[in-house]
Amino acid sequence: MQPRVDFISLGVRDVAISRRFYVEGLGWPVHREHEDDVVFIQANHGLILSLWNVAQMEEEAAVDPPSGVPCITLSHNVTSPDDVDRTMAQAKAAGALIVSTPRKQPWGGYTGYFADPDGFRWEVAFNPTWTVADDGGVTV
Amino acid sequence: MQPRVDFISLGVRDVAISRRFYVEGLGWPVHREHEDDVVFIQANHGLILSLWNVAQMEEEAAVDPPSGVPCITLSHNVTSPDDVDRTMAQAKAAGALIVSTPRKQPWGGYTGYFADPDGFRWEVAFNPTWTVADDGGVTV
Repeated sequence: MQPRVDFISLGVRDVAISRRFYVEGLGWPVHREHEDDVVFIQANHGLILSLWNVAQMEEEAAVDPPSGVPCITLSHNVTSPDDVDRTMAQAKAAGALIVSTPRKQPWGGYTGYFADPDGFRWEVAFNPTWTVADDGGVTV
Repeated sequence: MQPRVDFISLGVRDVAISRRFYVEGLGWPVHREHEDDVVFIQANHGLILSLWNVAQMEEEAAVDPPSGVPCITLSHNVTSPDDVDRTMAQAKAAGALIVSTPRKQPWGGYTGYFADPDGFRWEVAFNPTWTVADDGGVTV
């Protein structure tokens, strides 16, 4: 598993309010968005900051029940479903708690979630429409 | 305020346990470390993942009392103390809650903390010993 964070997803209560803060308030550029669901901001280099409706985010991560605590996910993108399985197995062997086993997502991807020793949540994701370069940069 | 995340700091209960997970388990390289206090991992491009003793992290952010919830900070590095003040003022104008007003830190830096509309914590930091390039990359 390369030392890479590709996405930071903030689970927000109201995407419009978060958009107002980051985009209108701080002046950050929207890379792509789906109204009321998610706003992607292309941050430095390959990193993407995602402002994501918290209910949808918890549903996709199969966290049940949602804790109510503001949630954050660090994402690690890989290049194939097999890579997702391998990376999840490596994390488990290293002592990670498996939050949700890898599964196909409605948007076409294949993702699993684990938690590190303090409960910080990582997603391991294969997204067939996005490119992960050899150097780890992600192109949306 | 440029759309940049320079550091992700995870507030961990036991740095040695986190080190074992990320460094020995996942194979991620240590960039720099201070025993029992913090481990810096140089992640993709300019991004640094910091595994930081949670008590120290909360003390530096002047969060009082510590919430007990695993804490995470997204850091935005700038090039001068004035830049810290300007950025904090911009965040406040955009609706941020000021977590701690900018102050000098024992390690020589000058930092302030704000929270976004969902309570996600950002540090705005000037570190005189680190370089922020025009393109936003940070060199430790």
